[in-house]
Amino acid sequence: MSAPQNEDEMAASLSIERSFLEKNLPIWKDQLTVRAFVVSFFLSIMFSVIVMKLNLTTGIIPSLNVSAGLLGFFLLKSWVKIVEKSGFMKRPFTRQENTVIQTCVVSASGIAFSGGFGSYLFGMSQTIADQTSELNDAQNIKDPQVGWIIGFLFVVSFLGLFSLVPLRKVMIIDYKLIYPSGTATAHLINSFHTPQGAILAKKQVKTLGKFFSISFLWGFFQWFYTAGDDCGFLNFPTLGLKARDNRFFFDFSATYIGAGMICPYIVNISVLVGGILSWGIMWPLIQNKKGDWYSAELPDSSFHGFQGYKVFISIALILGDGLYNFFKVILRTVDGFIKQIRSKGIPLPVNNDDNASSTIGKKHQETFDDQRRTEIFLKDQIPKTFAIAGYMAVALISIITVPHIFPPLKWYYILVVYAVAPVLAFCNAYGCGLTDWSLASTYGKLAIFTIGAWAGASNGGVLAGLAACGVMMSIVSTASDLMQDFKTGYLTLASPKSMFVSQVIGTSMGCVISPCVFWMFYKAFPKLGEYGSDYPAPYAGIYRNMAILGVEGFDALPAHCLQLCYGFFFAAIAISLTRDLLPKSISRFVPLPMAMAIPFYIGSYFGIDMCIGSLILFVWGKINKGKRDAFGPAVASGLICGDGIWTLPQSILALAKVKPPICMKFLSRTDNLKVTAFLSKP
Amino acid sequence: MSAPQNEDEMAASLSIERSFLEKNLPIWKDQLTVRAFVVSFFLSIMFSVIVMKLNLTTGIIPSLNVSAGLLGFFLLKSWVKIVEKSGFMKRPFTRQENTVIQTCVVSASGIAFSGGFGSYLFGMSQTIADQTSELNDAQNIKDPQVGWIIGFLFVVSFLGLFSLVPLRKVMIIDYKLIYPSGTATAHLINSFHTPQGAILAKKQVKTLGKFFSISFLWGFFQWFYTAGDDCGFLNFPTLGLKARDNRFFFDFSATYIGAGMICPYIVNISVLVGGILSWGIMWPLIQNKKGDWYSAELPDSSFHGFQGYKVFISIALILGDGLYNFFKVILRTVDGFIKQIRSKGIPLPVNNDDNASSTIGKKHQETFDDQRRTEIFLKDQIPKTFAIAGYMAVALISIITVPHIFPPLKWYYILVVYAVAPVLAFCNAYGCGLTDWSLASTYGKLAIFTIGAWAGASNGGVLAGLAACGVMMSIVSTASDLMQDFKTGYLTLASPKSMFVSQVIGTSMGCVISPCVFWMFYKAFPKLGEYGSDYPAPYAGIYRNMAILGVEGFDALPAHCLQLCYGFFFAAIAISLTRDLLPKSISRFVPLPMAMAIPFYIGSYFGIDMCIGSLILFVWGKINKGKRDAFGPAVASGLICGDGIWTLPQSILALAKVKPPICMKFLSRTDNLKVTAFLSKP
Repeated sequence: MSAPQNEDEMAASLSIERSFLEKNLPIWKDQLTVRAFVVSFFLSIMFSVIVMKLNLTTGIIPSLNVSAGLLGFFLLKSWVKIVEKSGFMKRPFTRQENTVIQTCVVSASGIAFSGGFGSYLFGMSQTIADQTSELNDAQNIKDPQVGWIIGFLFVVSFLGLFSLVPLRKVMIIDYKLIYPSGTATAHLINSFHTPQGAILAKKQVKTLGKFFSISFLWGFFQWFYTAGDDCGFLNFPTLGLKARDNRFFFDFSATYIGAGMICPYIVNISVLVGGILSWGIMWPLIQNKKGDWYSAELPDSSFHGFQGYKVFISIALILGDGLYNFFKVILRTVDGFIKQIRSKGIPLPVNNDDNASSTIGKKHQETFDDQRRTEIFLKDQIPKTFAIAGYMAVALISIITVPHIFPPLKWYYILVVYAVAPVLAFCNAYGCGLTDWSLASTYGKLAIFTIGAWAGASNGGVLAGLAACGVMMSIVSTASDLMQDFKTGYLTLASPKSMFVSQVIGTSMGCVISPCVFWMFYKAFPKLGEYGSDYPAPYAGIYRNMAILGVEGFDALPAHCLQLCYGFFFAAIAISLTRDLLPKSISRFVPLPMAMAIPFYIGSYFGIDMCIGSLILFVWGKINKGKRDAFGPAVASGLICGDGIWTLPQSILALAKVKPPICMKFLSRTDNLKVTAFLSKP
Repeated sequence: MSAPQNEDEMAASLSIERSFLEKNLPIWKDQLTVRAFVVSFFLSIMFSVIVMKLNLTTGIIPSLNVSAGLLGFFLLKSWVKIVEKSGFMKRPFTRQENTVIQTCVVSASGIAFSGGFGSYLFGMSQTIADQTSELNDAQNIKDPQVGWIIGFLFVVSFLGLFSLVPLRKVMIIDYKLIYPSGTATAHLINSFHTPQGAILAKKQVKTLGKFFSISFLWGFFQWFYTAGDDCGFLNFPTLGLKARDNRFFFDFSATYIGAGMICPYIVNISVLVGGILSWGIMWPLIQNKKGDWYSAELPDSSFHGFQGYKVFISIALILGDGLYNFFKVILRTVDGFIKQIRSKGIPLPVNNDDNASSTIGKKHQETFDDQRRTEIFLKDQIPKTFAIAGYMAVALISIITVPHIFPPLKWYYILVVYAVAPVLAFCNAYGCGLTDWSLASTYGKLAIFTIGAWAGASNGGVLAGLAACGVMMSIVSTASDLMQDFKTGYLTLASPKSMFVSQVIGTSMGCVISPCVFWMFYKAFPKLGEYGSDYPAPYAGIYRNMAILGVEGFDALPAHCLQLCYGFFFAAIAISLTRDLLPKSISRFVPLPMAMAIPFYIGSYFGIDMCIGSLILFVWGKINKGKRDAFGPAVASGLICGDGIWTLPQSILALAKVKPPICMKFLSRTDNLKVTAFLSKP
């Protein structure tokens, strides 16, 4: 790096906002352009499809903020260029507009997650209920219908927006919380809109486009060979038939290779370790106890038998890790809060996390950037009364309507949830600001257990618990998303007002798009939610079983399952504690219990994909670190988006009853001899 | 390019030999080191396996000279390094030694081609004879046995070496023939042994090694999925099931992708055009005439039916092109010869060929390099009397022993062949020097027709024809190889004596290695030579049918087949003539009839592989031409060698009766439904 030549240059090299000073800063209404929302609409559909696919296959969803920022930039830039060429009035494309798109897309596709299509909402369905033998009576079942889902989402999804609006100044300016994803996205958007940033962005977009096409065409190619259930690359016994029977194989999924490239190494390794521990060691051992620990006559899919171990041990791991993190974040929140009040300064929590430790902890000085950003951030105010009135009004509507959708969920349950929710939403938004880890689903699980137990078995407790989970998750998740976006807006000089409006519009889009996308999957893939199918929706079963557990207690579990669950519950806490107590050089090799849990249930094939993604990234880094860091996220996004979007035509083909022509089947040698003889018979 | 700074540098930049002057030039005996022959031995096995595999799959064999030079350099360089490190006496690795290895390996693996394991020799077998209904009586059949094959090769393979030795000065120094492959190899070897050449060579070897491993592992991976006949990637219906039934699919063969990268674009395109013309258009039309043009009761494999069209139209194309080139080369030879005698200078034939036109045709001046090379080349003489006596002695042994191996081949047939052979060998070596195109197999076909017809149907004419073909091909092919190597030796200052000795040793190795390698294939793959199998050995059937045609005439052909054959025969001549008459800018788009013929018989799947190889090379060239030119051959060689060498363990597994565990099967949707129902039955 060469030393700056004079003072001006020095200042420019340190200050981002100085380099943007000469650019025009639009007022908040001008940041909300029609073209931005048109682009957002299409991107929202795309990301909803991707998130929905991830929901329904493994439930592991990588952060798509960067992709949304990148594609938003690309699409609107192209739009501006085309309009320019056609000679119409030119309106410059600002970074505030870019932030509006990103915010809108993230909130719309966030509904695809917080709507619970892969968890609580789909957990209410007949398909999932049929996989358990308890509490699958009519009052505990509600099959998805596009109508009531849209209604439900509209009445619960906006509360989160109102709940934390008054606190935005406290969290963004006073506490200076980091929000790693929000900050990263803001840096990306800022860099795109500087001249040299635009060149890099162009190259990144080109790379993304290339891998998007490859991934899309690969998905298309694979499709031809999937006539039938066990056919196609998804069932390729890459490590042998025996290994495939235990869910160890590379399934050629571009999505999970891409996800593996985005997720930290330790997440991918944890998934693989979890897979080896469960499907490689424990499950075979438990299967040997068939007839002893559980009745040999039960089908493998019964929760009283083999399946029970898989599901409840996963739940134990998830709860252990979730609870640990819950208390950790609460403690930190309280701790940071106390320090905040005492020193009237900035919080300096003890923090092991990568992202957070990079800036927090340094002595902070008010720079030009800070001043300028704070000034703009405080210029447009959203009145507190508006926020409080909004919360009250939406809560009232919700308390009146939701019990009509879910009769077991009484109005007073909802009232209780809404009374507690803002506090939990604050906790979550604060924790997320520190660690980038949203615990929305953990708060949802709390609701399942408490409301489920309160309602009781005879009053449709399972359905009540799942519905309460939805109400809780929607608030908590949306609140932290909003605060994340405020941070992005703060760093890109976008007005809080435009952020809020963009969130409202995005959430409305999401409330319509997500149910429609889910409906498409639901109709296109009849095996949706069935264990062992291509779309097992693992969390749907897990959530329903949590609700049953909350209502019924532990009586239904097969032998020794409870002991194993206790073991793994405390192991998860111990492992998480170990991660935090050990020095970072060692703790970064300790796996994450949360990431280990999913392969316990569905097998480790996607973990193998993700580790291949890690491996690609690792080798690429060895060869050319600079290129990897610049283009790795673009390649990963391309792979995820291409494969995700292929799902759209695939579903349309399925709905149109166009079936693939060929089955690529994998038979053992002996089976093949039989089949060959059978087929050669006239 | 920067201008040379002074006279010394100028001279060095123009003269290769000046830069080598300071290096020690070993005497001829010192060029023949034990280590060189040890390395040659292992490389000979490797290349024999590769050539044999190509022989038995499609019969199209790309030039492996460059790979041999490269790998020879790498292995001996490693050897020298290891010896150096272990503290033993160091002996420098010279380019002459490198040339000796290359010569030895090329002559040894040349036997794998000229031994006719994919053509005349295997055409004598019961397997091939069973595919025709004519002349498959005992006297026309000789099943391969490793014993007699080695004996036969020993008595016929050395004649070629002696036949042209006396003429080497005329052809190399007086005529200054080009021998494109020999020259290219010499440049490669020279460049390796200069300092900057060694660095490039190291990188090339690394690339080769990488793709060797990829290709080998890919072969290994594929193996697991080939339990059964229609299983595995070799049968992947990449373009759909219907297209696969007509032999249009990409079969994932690293060998043919590599071969496609070495062969000129026009060869690959010709193969594909041939495939589309035959399997895409003509064969479906002819099949519609089933019951009309040929009996519907005949199996598809009968030469009186559908198969007859495939084989004889291929033969017509091959003969047309072969005959045209034969006369062209003869004419050119005579023409060049006359000019040679008239001007006592260098021949300047009119020449359309890429390789030849680059240096011939320029006014030639005696440079320092020429002087030095000529001096060294003439230093070591092989006495003419030795050559003539050698030829006589080997011919005598051959005339006595060969009729014992093939009773129908009377001693006087062999005598006639040996009387004519030296003239044809000269023609071939001269033509090859001009065009790099060895017509050995065309001369072999001449022998099939003449000797076959002479012996007649009742005297085992088919076997006599095929055996005569072998005798003729061995001489003609070896002679041009030898002269090619003399050219390489001339350019690398290797002594003609060491070249000759290396050829003799290489040929002896080949006479043992090739039959053993063939034997391994023969025992390991029981379906070897069967039409439609993985190893169809297409030329074996074609050669046998030529012999039958020579003996029997055209009576056995199905209806209209003869007319079609005439058509394609003259079309081949016309196309070849067009290629030569049109200006080069147009003629380079005219396909080669010889390359079109093979897919007529076996289908165009390998043509698709080869075109993908071309495509890779083309795109690579667009991205980075320099890199493509430097590393393209290394990548291609790596792909070919890796896949070829995988054949070795694959055969061993087959011999040890270790069968692959999985069948990757491709079923139509309806078949899959049937199979699923069948397999789910208890």
